[in-house]
Amino acid sequence: MAKELKELTSRAENYSQWYQDLVIKAGLAENSAVRGCMVIKPYGYAIWEKMQRALDDMFKETGHVNAYFPLLIPKSFMSREADHIEGFAKECAVVTHYRLKNSADGKGVVVDPAAKLEEELIIRPTSETIIWNTYRNWIQSYRDLPILINQWANVMRWEMRTRLFLRTAEFLWQEGHTAHATRSEAEEETLRMHNVYARFAEEFMAMPVIKGRKTESERFAGALETYTIEAMMQDGKALQAGTSHFLGQNFGKAFDVTFIDQDGKTDYAWATSWGASTRLVGALIMAHSDDNGLVLPPRLAPIQVVIVPIYRNAEQLAQISAKANAIVAKLKTLGITAKYDDADNRKPGWKFAEYELKGIPVRLAIGARDLENNTIEVMRRDKLEKETLPCDNIETYIQSLLDDIQHNIYRKAHDHRASHIVNADTYEEFKEKIEEGLFIMAHWDGTPETEERIKNETKATIRCIPLEGDKTPGRCMLTGQPSACRVLFARSY
Amino acid sequence: MAKELKELTSRAENYSQWYQDLVIKAGLAENSAVRGCMVIKPYGYAIWEKMQRALDDMFKETGHVNAYFPLLIPKSFMSREADHIEGFAKECAVVTHYRLKNSADGKGVVVDPAAKLEEELIIRPTSETIIWNTYRNWIQSYRDLPILINQWANVMRWEMRTRLFLRTAEFLWQEGHTAHATRSEAEEETLRMHNVYARFAEEFMAMPVIKGRKTESERFAGALETYTIEAMMQDGKALQAGTSHFLGQNFGKAFDVTFIDQDGKTDYAWATSWGASTRLVGALIMAHSDDNGLVLPPRLAPIQVVIVPIYRNAEQLAQISAKANAIVAKLKTLGITAKYDDADNRKPGWKFAEYELKGIPVRLAIGARDLENNTIEVMRRDKLEKETLPCDNIETYIQSLLDDIQHNIYRKAHDHRASHIVNADTYEEFKEKIEEGLFIMAHWDGTPETEERIKNETKATIRCIPLEGDKTPGRCMLTGQPSACRVLFARSY
Repeated sequence: MAKELKELTSRAENYSQWYQDLVIKAGLAENSAVRGCMVIKPYGYAIWEKMQRALDDMFKETGHVNAYFPLLIPKSFMSREADHIEGFAKECAVVTHYRLKNSADGKGVVVDPAAKLEEELIIRPTSETIIWNTYRNWIQSYRDLPILINQWANVMRWEMRTRLFLRTAEFLWQEGHTAHATRSEAEEETLRMHNVYARFAEEFMAMPVIKGRKTESERFAGALETYTIEAMMQDGKALQAGTSHFLGQNFGKAFDVTFIDQDGKTDYAWATSWGASTRLVGALIMAHSDDNGLVLPPRLAPIQVVIVPIYRNAEQLAQISAKANAIVAKLKTLGITAKYDDADNRKPGWKFAEYELKGIPVRLAIGARDLENNTIEVMRRDKLEKETLPCDNIETYIQSLLDDIQHNIYRKAHDHRASHIVNADTYEEFKEKIEEGLFIMAHWDGTPETEERIKNETKATIRCIPLEGDKTPGRCMLTGQPSACRVLFARSY
Repeated sequence: MAKELKELTSRAENYSQWYQDLVIKAGLAENSAVRGCMVIKPYGYAIWEKMQRALDDMFKETGHVNAYFPLLIPKSFMSREADHIEGFAKECAVVTHYRLKNSADGKGVVVDPAAKLEEELIIRPTSETIIWNTYRNWIQSYRDLPILINQWANVMRWEMRTRLFLRTAEFLWQEGHTAHATRSEAEEETLRMHNVYARFAEEFMAMPVIKGRKTESERFAGALETYTIEAMMQDGKALQAGTSHFLGQNFGKAFDVTFIDQDGKTDYAWATSWGASTRLVGALIMAHSDDNGLVLPPRLAPIQVVIVPIYRNAEQLAQISAKANAIVAKLKTLGITAKYDDADNRKPGWKFAEYELKGIPVRLAIGARDLENNTIEVMRRDKLEKETLPCDNIETYIQSLLDDIQHNIYRKAHDHRASHIVNADTYEEFKEKIEEGLFIMAHWDGTPETEERIKNETKATIRCIPLEGDKTPGRCMLTGQPSACRVLFARSY
């Protein structure tokens, strides 16, 4: 077996290093020559493509259409909405010139000082401003509403500490931007998309999430309400996996987007925005993978089944290939992506380790004895369990096995979370348990001051005020002031 | 009928204005607040999505995978390949700073001078440099080759004169970047993708193209050979619709990408790149549309069939709706996208004009008489011909009608081109005919000087040296020097 495949740091040893190793060794992404920007390699991008397709279908089912707005935003747009600029201005890539010219020494190029822009442009960190500036011309009457648009795009935020997928200066995402005639319609939309994200996380990513509202200090810059889905990673940290914002009339007012309502009255349009990014690939890895490599839920695995032949001579290989190709074809008719790997420059053992590392949900192997007995070896990646089964109708078995793997991965993550989420009633208890890497449900007095102090002292933040679950009131663990319900605290990515 | 729909300038009156009107009125795209950058509106983006899906499938069928590389490129990378910088350096958006801060007057934001980048970054005008800088680490042995990667991305070229879709500062495209162990393999790949583009243009866009090589002066910056597909627009101008470049070892050398070949010898990797962009949406419009609006080939039409009810009362509407919904459902099972438009705030006449403008290939209408007779009115957009047919099995009829429309649109464009392409044997004849808006096949002595002079005097360029067709040698129409074969001249977009 190839030595380099064995060099994955274990989770117990160093979770953070394990993640980094895995992203690199499984060929998902790597750092680029540009600080903080990653190269998404083909296998990582294939997972993103599966995510994109599933999300895009869900957006379209809920009535949205795609469009595309400019990458660059005039600097002045950013300061139109007061809260928005506070949240984003500090970390933007700024375009100041539009031309290079040959340097005097003839050896390279320099920025042409004559080509300075009158107004600087920033690379979008998010597109509310440029989009609402555009919507102004699209919206006159309530008949023009709602506008239900999504955009797939790259965005850039000049992050200082970056980690592949989880936090990068440039990342890929989708951003929905909708405009509505009424507050209630916009609020409904915000929740609708919040639920779409939750459904995507649970049904496709096999990742249970806690749905909730953000506290004021954790809200999106410019939002009246931010809904989030929070997932637990295997180290007990939380990862925010998709947010949906009710923006009220803030952007309508900032960009003067008014419309005539049914009664002939003029009002500002109501807004929502919602986004999910390539960060989800990081979440997927951290939620399920193990010390042998990736564990991918079948619904997002670029290759769902791989078949490896084990043979001593060309004649055996020919017989195995005939069988394997027939299985690949049958799986294809069931909508299952299968690969037959008959490459002759690698040993079966190397391939086994490689496909474990890459998280292919089901690995099949056919050897000489299988030919004799008309059997096939089936290995499921999630449990690393092998069984030998009759070849006939193996495709129907695999189809239900993939379903079972999808559910098992979800269940495992769910059980892990259930055993790592606790209540804390005193601040002492809280501080102890947060060190153990747990999600903590605790009472909080609702003030940003208390929230801030807890954050500074424990590095734990309020991940959300859960929408569901226990709503019993109590007293803040820190100040003893009244609390409407427990909120979710955790350290986070 | 809505007056604004009638305000499309006719092609005869002003072709350029007709195009501009059509893009705006059909809701395809519009100019944005950022100079030269467009907003691609939902209907325009839906066409691009159809193109993307078809191209992406063809790329994957030919063994390619997608990946993603950074938006920003260190300035110094651009000058590594000498020809490349000449072609691109002059028109780049340059990022010089990474932070804004509140202005002294507190009213806005300014660039933070403390946040100046050590090395400026440019927004990719194309990605050869950043990609080949990455490939250096991916390629050690011939076993690592070929690398067959495609990227869907936005790019930016600071164009001075822009036109929606045809030439914009930012545009969306795909760029393939492959690395090979041998020259012949790379040359084969270049031609393979050239043929993929030609097939896409003809089979999906219904747009006949002339395949050929670019002359040296029209080649991609850094390429040894550029293959192009050239399409004729209705005004007789040429539009380059997709190019495939054989880059030799230029980028391998510039970025020191070497590998050990099968004989243990070190060599530089061989490269190709190939791209097609949102410009194709412009080509699609210009190739087929008419004075009533868009004419979309069914294979790229976001909505292929629309059904409009014509009714006097709710009872009639209910009966029509039942029929229409059944037809929509049946069309869907045939893979045909149909929309039933029963909106009650618009008259049928308005809808007819609207769907003509939007180029929906087939419009169905059901009225009171149709209910009585069990008939339906079928209008095909390409010929604007109506017929009334029995309702039963209308879906099979529509399926073959869509095929017929696809072929008819192609045939029409083909016939138009056939009647607008001529030979010219003298420069006088050439100058006359170029004024008539024709494609001209003429002999040329093969020198950049002659090419340049013809361009300056007539605004016609050599679109390509065709791969197919008459290869009879002759004498240059301008200098009388020997010419290996006729080349294609035209004015172009």
